[in-house]
Amino acid sequence: MTPAPATARAADLARRIAAFMEAHVYPAEAVFERQVDGARWKPAPVMEELKARARAQGLWNLFLPPSERPDGLTNLEYAPLCEIMGRSPLGPEAFNCSAPDTGNMETLARHGSAAQKEQWLNPLLDGTMRSCFAMTEPDVASSDATNIRTEIRRVGDHYVINGRKWWTSGAMDPRCRIALLMGRSDPDGPRHRRHSMILVPMATPGVTVARPLTVFGYDDAPHGHAEVAFEDVRVPVSNILAGEGRGFEIAQSRLGPGRVHHCMRLIGVAERALETMCRRAVSRTTFGRAIADHGVTRHWIAESRMEIDQVRLLTLEAARAMDEHGYKAARAAIAMIKVAAPNMAQKVIDRAIQVCGGGGVSQDFHLAYAYARTRALRLADGPDEVHRETIAKLELARYQNPPPRPNG
Amino acid sequence: MTPAPATARAADLARRIAAFMEAHVYPAEAVFERQVDGARWKPAPVMEELKARARAQGLWNLFLPPSERPDGLTNLEYAPLCEIMGRSPLGPEAFNCSAPDTGNMETLARHGSAAQKEQWLNPLLDGTMRSCFAMTEPDVASSDATNIRTEIRRVGDHYVINGRKWWTSGAMDPRCRIALLMGRSDPDGPRHRRHSMILVPMATPGVTVARPLTVFGYDDAPHGHAEVAFEDVRVPVSNILAGEGRGFEIAQSRLGPGRVHHCMRLIGVAERALETMCRRAVSRTTFGRAIADHGVTRHWIAESRMEIDQVRLLTLEAARAMDEHGYKAARAAIAMIKVAAPNMAQKVIDRAIQVCGGGGVSQDFHLAYAYARTRALRLADGPDEVHRETIAKLELARYQNPPPRPNG
Amino acid sequence: MTPAPATARAADLARRIAAFMEAHVYPAEAVFERQVDGARWKPAPVMEELKARARAQGLWNLFLPPSERPDGLTNLEYAPLCEIMGRSPLGPEAFNCSAPDTGNMETLARHGSAAQKEQWLNPLLDGTMRSCFAMTEPDVASSDATNIRTEIRRVGDHYVINGRKWWTSGAMDPRCRIALLMGRSDPDGPRHRRHSMILVPMATPGVTVARPLTVFGYDDAPHGHAEVAFEDVRVPVSNILAGEGRGFEIAQSRLGPGRVHHCMRLIGVAERALETMCRRAVSRTTFGRAIADHGVTRHWIAESRMEIDQVRLLTLEAARAMDEHGYKAARAAIAMIKVAAPNMAQKVIDRAIQVCGGGGVSQDFHLAYAYARTRALRLADGPDEVHRETIAKLELARYQNPPPRPNG
Amino acid sequence: MTPAPATARAADLARRIAAFMEAHVYPAEAVFERQVDGARWKPAPVMEELKARARAQGLWNLFLPPSERPDGLTNLEYAPLCEIMGRSPLGPEAFNCSAPDTGNMETLARHGSAAQKEQWLNPLLDGTMRSCFAMTEPDVASSDATNIRTEIRRVGDHYVINGRKWWTSGAMDPRCRIALLMGRSDPDGPRHRRHSMILVPMATPGVTVARPLTVFGYDDAPHGHAEVAFEDVRVPVSNILAGEGRGFEIAQSRLGPGRVHHCMRLIGVAERALETMCRRAVSRTTFGRAIADHGVTRHWIAESRMEIDQVRLLTLEAARAMDEHGYKAARAAIAMIKVAAPNMAQKVIDRAIQVCGGGGVSQDFHLAYAYARTRALRLADGPDEVHRETIAKLELARYQNPPPRPNG
Repeated sequence: MTPAPATARAADLARRIAAFMEAHVYPAEAVFERQVDGARWKPAPVMEELKARARAQGLWNLFLPPSERPDGLTNLEYAPLCEIMGRSPLGPEAFNCSAPDTGNMETLARHGSAAQKEQWLNPLLDGTMRSCFAMTEPDVASSDATNIRTEIRRVGDHYVINGRKWWTSGAMDPRCRIALLMGRSDPDGPRHRRHSMILVPMATPGVTVARPLTVFGYDDAPHGHAEVAFEDVRVPVSNILAGEGRGFEIAQSRLGPGRVHHCMRLIGVAERALETMCRRAVSRTTFGRAIADHGVTRHWIAESRMEIDQVRLLTLEAARAMDEHGYKAARAAIAMIKVAAPNMAQKVIDRAIQVCGGGGVSQDFHLAYAYARTRALRLADGPDEVHRETIAKLELARYQNPPPRPNG
Repeated sequence: MTPAPATARAADLARRIAAFMEAHVYPAEAVFERQVDGARWKPAPVMEELKARARAQGLWNLFLPPSERPDGLTNLEYAPLCEIMGRSPLGPEAFNCSAPDTGNMETLARHGSAAQKEQWLNPLLDGTMRSCFAMTEPDVASSDATNIRTEIRRVGDHYVINGRKWWTSGAMDPRCRIALLMGRSDPDGPRHRRHSMILVPMATPGVTVARPLTVFGYDDAPHGHAEVAFEDVRVPVSNILAGEGRGFEIAQSRLGPGRVHHCMRLIGVAERALETMCRRAVSRTTFGRAIADHGVTRHWIAESRMEIDQVRLLTLEAARAMDEHGYKAARAAIAMIKVAAPNMAQKVIDRAIQVCGGGGVSQDFHLAYAYARTRALRLADGPDEVHRETIAKLELARYQNPPPRPNG
Repeated sequence: MTPAPATARAADLARRIAAFMEAHVYPAEAVFERQVDGARWKPAPVMEELKARARAQGLWNLFLPPSERPDGLTNLEYAPLCEIMGRSPLGPEAFNCSAPDTGNMETLARHGSAAQKEQWLNPLLDGTMRSCFAMTEPDVASSDATNIRTEIRRVGDHYVINGRKWWTSGAMDPRCRIALLMGRSDPDGPRHRRHSMILVPMATPGVTVARPLTVFGYDDAPHGHAEVAFEDVRVPVSNILAGEGRGFEIAQSRLGPGRVHHCMRLIGVAERALETMCRRAVSRTTFGRAIADHGVTRHWIAESRMEIDQVRLLTLEAARAMDEHGYKAARAAIAMIKVAAPNMAQKVIDRAIQVCGGGGVSQDFHLAYAYARTRALRLADGPDEVHRETIAKLELARYQNPPPRPNG
Repeated sequence: MTPAPATARAADLARRIAAFMEAHVYPAEAVFERQVDGARWKPAPVMEELKARARAQGLWNLFLPPSERPDGLTNLEYAPLCEIMGRSPLGPEAFNCSAPDTGNMETLARHGSAAQKEQWLNPLLDGTMRSCFAMTEPDVASSDATNIRTEIRRVGDHYVINGRKWWTSGAMDPRCRIALLMGRSDPDGPRHRRHSMILVPMATPGVTVARPLTVFGYDDAPHGHAEVAFEDVRVPVSNILAGEGRGFEIAQSRLGPGRVHHCMRLIGVAERALETMCRRAVSRTTFGRAIADHGVTRHWIAESRMEIDQVRLLTLEAARAMDEHGYKAARAAIAMIKVAAPNMAQKVIDRAIQVCGGGGVSQDFHLAYAYARTRALRLADGPDEVHRETIAKLELARYQNPPPRPNG
């Protein structure tokens, strides 16, 4: 049950993006894999071709909201596009709509100085470079951003940065030229004013991309998830974003849209898994019957359809709430989709794997890779538990002030 | 996340019904129980008081669709009202919006002759009598309506009816004066033309209310779920509804709205269970902490909030689809809510019981009774499995004609 | 997979009890129900017939452990007998092996004075009277026994008791003549020495059986779960059990065997539900196939078989551990079965209900009643959460002293 | 709750193997990974060192049953050893107890000719070569062995083999010198006599190791899961095992012990995951509390402990049944563990990942790799569904002949 897109232009974009995916993106998947297998940490030429083609068709930078671009799409308009792009791991980048660049571009557009925009935002919007977001740290529970310990210390006209980050996605890519880094600039300041966000060119001395992390054996090349060391890294004071002490605030403002995007992509991932499950089920026979005729397969298909449709409606509702009332009012909704979407997709993909048999866990299907990325999203950007806590807290708050009425 | 009602008049009705529930319905629950305990199969006076009051406020017969009443509410408008009424087992009847009368009234309005309407529809709309729907049979799997075996045989100017029904809800109530009975009038006719629907006054000789069935120990008095025997019951031919052979078609047309109503009521039931869980959690201390401060309770509250909100959105979407495209186009959506709503409510209530401790399974909370009624709805009107089968069939149909593409 | 009974005499008893169940107990179920429906809070004559017959066959008081009776059965020997008896709600009492009398008899045997044994233990062993255990209180979280607030105050040669108990099972039965009551005798004493256990004849002035509690809609007559008020109840000092301050210790010593018995009975309940599910599945046809040929039914049957067998093995292992190493060493195992058994049985019965259709929730099958009793056992004698906490605490203790090795 | 090993020698071996794991195997894991990363499809020197050391200590070839070696261990004795070895991916091979060689060695011991034993069994027992088992085919549902299509055609004194196999584990390893291949030698023979098992030296012309399959993103080097093409491969007729037409029978006889071994290893995997979860939980703080003090973590730990202990008991019971009554009588038990063990381990590992945060999905913990291998075991050697079907069939058979008794 996919509700019609919210507006005519969204419907038109949805049709065009879906056609582009069929014509260009799905066929590029095998090519991409071969090219990357041949040269692990080099950009794949086929991706640049996809980008050129998408840009030529005007399917480019669609993520920018009305606040940053006069004809920008609302979250509710953009969400269904995200779902379609998310069906392929190549989709988002092809349309210059992939994380973490989208969040970085929004941040630069909103908080960057003119010079910062000129130097970094423009080439990102052009898709000629990439960026990373250096937030999570191996030694602290980064789900609570106030734990971040990387040091940003002012010394004359520079900031000197020392610390260690990991899960810095994209940092392995040679096209990645800039990091938006979150660090602690005022350890003794008020809790939500201790941190700053700063621009660190990857080429700065002292920046070392230490190693790629894997996700269930996948290294996500050429993008990659890096552990990055920052040792006495010096950048000019003008590299600070928005001003000292505003790191936490900037990080928060990234979250709402970013989560809606991630969740809609996951719905695309789940839809494709369900499609694969169904295609396999109707085309393969075991014990004298099509797999589609086995009762348990049908049970799984029905469950998957129900779960996907429910999470899609919830995510669209969160997008609508964010458009209409802002991030703060929508935060229960956003916490809910952040839990519901990856858990749903994990279940759907697991069933699809089971229906596909041995092949399902291998490179012959897109499923195992989709599973790995989905599973990681139950941890990335705050584990399930942190978001469930947000939901519970908001729910309980309705009953904690008025006198309790025990038997309902 | 409750979306705003679809229209201003729906919002206004929602406010008024919620206020009525607070002021009159919840306080009546204990009174009702005492009155029924005192006189098991007699109508409770407090219910007649509620009805009079609701009618006086114009909160009456809201279920009638635009097709049957010029200012009727759409399914999308009516759904949220249903949710509020459904919070109490007394709610729907108080507003003359309770099953099976609503379905029977719609059926009479749509298919009844002028005389039938005069005799039966009007007093039902007035709330001065009640009705039952004699469909399910103990000896066949009634989830497939074409299995119904009760015989309707024409003999001169009469039909003679022989058979045995059960789960005939409401038949124990002395106010119940008419049964809409589904039976087989043409055993050799085409599969979907074999059955007819006929009006059988409960006072007709040969109609015997054999016994009340219980649902987890509850008899639902004074309403009751009856086993009813029909032995050589003779009614005039004019009692047929719409014409011989139209039973299956009439039964189908009842289903869509009826399921949306049931599901929305279940959402109300689940919301109230969650509310009870939260109130208990903040008011009771175990092992030195409020139950609300135990991590597992918070986990359950978060899960419950997510599950309820998702099913509500799905149900509203089904209502919208039915309003816009008709029952047939919405049948996947309707099958989905018929599975999703009771399963969701069952989980939420089970958690609420656990949080309430021993009291949760007793008469001191509304939870065990809510659980019993909810569990029965995974069987009533087709078990989960039948509806999952519908969903799977529609999903697979998308892949069964085009050539399969196995690896997705 | 039922392992062979541990000894030849256990195997012999198992055979004889199973035969007795087939010949006498199952056929008595409908009779019992009719008799109780006719006279709600009176003992059913059929039960007394069963008891006489079982006693005549030597199938009597089998629960007594070797410590209390030279030829007593070990927990490992008794467990499989409990399973068989537990298949019917009438089974345990028929063999004079039903709660709470078994625990009360063990307690009297172990801690009672000669006079107490003479007066109360002997008629209990003879099955000529019954008893109750007044522990849980409505106003405190009784899962932590140290919360118990009922006051036992010494005044001269008497104790004066004031407090309110509920879930005092058996107290509704006119045959119930004695309560073992737990109360607080020394509010300022050390935490585990504050409470005492005392014998309170039900006929003592000030003892008021206030009302029966229901479990879902069942009142469990004539046994019943009572709320009991104790107002200025005076009993002679000689009624104390074992001595002042030993209440907590006595309560603890009841728990181990009691839980093993409960869990084994639940396994019997689950086995019978699975049997009912299978019998129904092979005898009923829907959509042109036996229910047994629907894939989802087969899935449920397989899952049920696996779950039952696992919990049985776990429970037998707990029994063995208790026999060999005592209650304390076996407490992780006992906590595990207390969680695992009712949760397993709840799932199995729920599936059986679904397979049986509408009838499954009614009085026509034993399932809804079995469900209600099973669900209550996730709360009785400590909710799941308390026992999971015990398990987690013991597990984590293995890692909390040695220096942690984070990456395993 | 780990029951004591069945015999004194098993207890002694358990102690020695556990000590060896601590002293040598766990520390070798990182070394192994580095060596394999450096030379992907070459044997890692550290493994040869482990093997030499284990052999020197007499911890070698423990899998051989009494039928093949006078002092062989029973399944019940060997099972707990398997669990300990299975804690590390390096464990089984270190003790020359790893699949598929164990199954191949048993098969050769039981069905091989003297010459075959001399040439292939002896070096396998010595650990100087490895072997593979070429059974599963990409184009058919191999869960039903009678579907196997690879052709074994007799031409004079040779058999000529044509077909394609995949998931031929170990075939990528340069030490792998022999394949036991299952193929169809008599397409028109009776269903269970159509297939033969034959020895195919990997160096035979026409054998092409086409590519490694990945399991999620892991290639399991240097072992590897290969797709292997057999094109006009000629081997002498003396290479047949046991005789033409006995393939199905030989394949069956491998299954029982193999499954018990796999399941016990999975229990080791799950135990280690639980250990990792606990160690992390006590050593890491989030939101001001040790993760171990969060209620949901404790819930997971308790659930994991219960699930592991239940599956272990079930697996030991299956081993005992197989020892006492043979494979056929134990087949319900074996089907049960084949479903229960990987599903249990999958859940436990998933929770451990969640507790370990981002690191949990990476190479820094053993968890993601363990997850991938475990997930594959829900498909390898027959998917869950096939084994559930076996369980259901055996369960239903108890009710299909006697007249059904519907209401239990």
